[in-house]
Amino acid sequence: MRPPSLLSLTLDSALLRIAHIADLSHLPDHLVIDLFRVEKVLKLFLATGCEEIILAVQLLNIKQPLKMSSGIQDSEVDIVIAALQPNLNTFFEAWRPFFSRFHIIVVKDPDMAEDLKIPTGFDLKVYTKADIDGVLGASSINFSGHSCRYFGYLVSRKKYVISIDDNCLPAKDAAGSTVDAVAQHMTNLKTPATPFFFNTLYDPYRKGADFVRGYPFSLREGVECMLSCGLWLHNADYDPMTHVVKRNQRNTTYVDAVMTVPLGAMMPVSGINVAFNREVLGPVMFPGLRLRNEGKHRWDTLEDIWNGLCAKVVCDSLGYGMKTGLPYVMRSDAEAGKALESLKEWEGVKVMDDVLPFFQSLKLSRTAVTVEDCVKELASIVREKLGPKNAVFTKAADAMVEWNNLWKSHGAHHA
Amino acid sequence: MRPPSLLSLTLDSALLRIAHIADLSHLPDHLVIDLFRVEKVLKLFLATGCEEIILAVQLLNIKQPLKMSSGIQDSEVDIVIAALQPNLNTFFEAWRPFFSRFHIIVVKDPDMAEDLKIPTGFDLKVYTKADIDGVLGASSINFSGHSCRYFGYLVSRKKYVISIDDNCLPAKDAAGSTVDAVAQHMTNLKTPATPFFFNTLYDPYRKGADFVRGYPFSLREGVECMLSCGLWLHNADYDPMTHVVKRNQRNTTYVDAVMTVPLGAMMPVSGINVAFNREVLGPVMFPGLRLRNEGKHRWDTLEDIWNGLCAKVVCDSLGYGMKTGLPYVMRSDAEAGKALESLKEWEGVKVMDDVLPFFQSLKLSRTAVTVEDCVKELASIVREKLGPKNAVFTKAADAMVEWNNLWKSHGAHHA
Repeated sequence: MRPPSLLSLTLDSALLRIAHIADLSHLPDHLVIDLFRVEKVLKLFLATGCEEIILAVQLLNIKQPLKMSSGIQDSEVDIVIAALQPNLNTFFEAWRPFFSRFHIIVVKDPDMAEDLKIPTGFDLKVYTKADIDGVLGASSINFSGHSCRYFGYLVSRKKYVISIDDNCLPAKDAAGSTVDAVAQHMTNLKTPATPFFFNTLYDPYRKGADFVRGYPFSLREGVECMLSCGLWLHNADYDPMTHVVKRNQRNTTYVDAVMTVPLGAMMPVSGINVAFNREVLGPVMFPGLRLRNEGKHRWDTLEDIWNGLCAKVVCDSLGYGMKTGLPYVMRSDAEAGKALESLKEWEGVKVMDDVLPFFQSLKLSRTAVTVEDCVKELASIVREKLGPKNAVFTKAADAMVEWNNLWKSHGAHHA
Repeated sequence: MRPPSLLSLTLDSALLRIAHIADLSHLPDHLVIDLFRVEKVLKLFLATGCEEIILAVQLLNIKQPLKMSSGIQDSEVDIVIAALQPNLNTFFEAWRPFFSRFHIIVVKDPDMAEDLKIPTGFDLKVYTKADIDGVLGASSINFSGHSCRYFGYLVSRKKYVISIDDNCLPAKDAAGSTVDAVAQHMTNLKTPATPFFFNTLYDPYRKGADFVRGYPFSLREGVECMLSCGLWLHNADYDPMTHVVKRNQRNTTYVDAVMTVPLGAMMPVSGINVAFNREVLGPVMFPGLRLRNEGKHRWDTLEDIWNGLCAKVVCDSLGYGMKTGLPYVMRSDAEAGKALESLKEWEGVKVMDDVLPFFQSLKLSRTAVTVEDCVKELASIVREKLGPKNAVFTKAADAMVEWNNLWKSHGAHHA
């Protein structure tokens, strides 16, 4: 048996002296937190009825560390990968240290004929065009290209889904350590979000951070975080025009922050590196908007941007939060140089100038109390208000209604 | 004479071939930007009428670099320092490399009897209780403690004001370089803000950054940034309760980002390290809210938080932006340990739980088209809605009205 650690001795000593402790301010914070993480100790301290201790417990958000202390349950996460290229060897080898604990769903782009190359040693299931056709029948939802990953969201049975593009590898943080994107996404989802007031020191639940002066105490519990939008180093996520004029620009700034996107503020969620609560958000995680010439490249698509706006509006309406920032992945978009080819026919410019004002002024009714309700209402408003402007919006509304039905029949099952 | 640089030779060569250049995508970005920064070259290129070039100019936000290229005009910035301690030698010596170019206004806390110690070699004017009394007469605005700096805002004649607490020294960035807080604040104020959509890669005008895919092109010009809220390493800015339970916690995370706080989102602006456009925002930069036992310590005050909320509401209403993030300063709050003493009488908890919902639901009328108009309207709504809840709000409304008059008679003069 190993001798007891200095920490456990301190804890024991504090426990014995509990009747005499009325003020915890002399203890270093990490000891206070460690003390309170021992559930029995926490109960004992709270039982003293000492106001300062109860205050300390509240301020330290002790409930959250308790929840978090169990870490990620392997069984509550699916990794969903859209295979847009046949050879996934480099991708999976690079991610092996972080993915190998989890069940992985690979959805092969239904347009791709070649066989997939995937290394062994993963708990992994591949879904192909045959699977998609089998489940969907005559669907109006187009699952080709990047949209194939949404089929993975449908067939997953886990509470959480993490999805990372197949041209992304693990990034390194500012200190040179390889980033565990899975762990960071799960921390983002499992600690509360704070959409009602902006905390200038970013995520207050991060180690070493807190709510700054002036942050109302009634808002410090936060709300549940439903979506975590991660970022990208090297090749940033640009539209074709920005690719053309900035083709040599690389994103090299590692911003060491996670933040909640405030209530009412809209953001461009990229599907490159994203995680979400599938059980709750599933009905709104659909490939709705598809441009006429939407291809196999991120710079061609708006499907994830549209999806993110829908998700944000629904989260705002139901009192949930969304975060952005860490984790980064290293993105290598070798084909970005071809963006010029699609520039002339790309509709994204006009489309977003219609889309954003629509979402900014949108208020879902209070009678829509589930994500399904919200999507149903959202689809009908899209059809009515945006439909007349461009046929892609009517198709989006169709896809949203169909996804809602699909989710009821195929998605809403949990492990 | 030095031989011409490779860059200038390239520029010359491009200039000579201008009639044959229809596509700039083969040029590395930094050359394109350098090219366009030469005003004559920019005009020549635009005169070709080539659509792609015009697009490139727009996407690179070339207007901004042109505006910025002249750098900071020393004559348009005042540094305003509130002296709450008599010995400012360490403070000024540390800031000398960054402050010495600028005119400095020191306002001495009217409650402090001791003489100030300030090193020589600065273009500096000290204002004391006698000056304050002389200008204000029988004012209901209380300029003691941290609030004395607002007198400096009133007597400044510059377009921009930067104010940093006297217990803050220059910080070091992640690479170990000393941060020029003045330059960073001025960059924040002189590049546009983007309050209408959240850019996941933070400030799109920063070197190496841009608008991510999905960001509407119609919003990429941004709006004028009126306030820049900087941050703090070491001693963070906490209320007394958080100080008591986290007295050993230090902020060590250097987050290398600047961002616009979205339209409608409220934030706790700290007066510790702040810069703003005095010409425009002056009428709303007042010490309005003062708690019953507001002392000389940041953790006691809400004057800057209230001020920031008023400024944000006004900026949102008039279509201006506010940024937060860089620059950091290194903050050393030696007295934070005394926070426990004021904990029991501190009203900040209750007050903010009334204040935030008020500001979140506030909409100023469209007929208020100047900052003065907005403040006038805001004061009367504060008096009506918040006044009955707590006498401090009625006093705040009084102070706001009085400040508006003071500004007309004393503040609204520019160099």
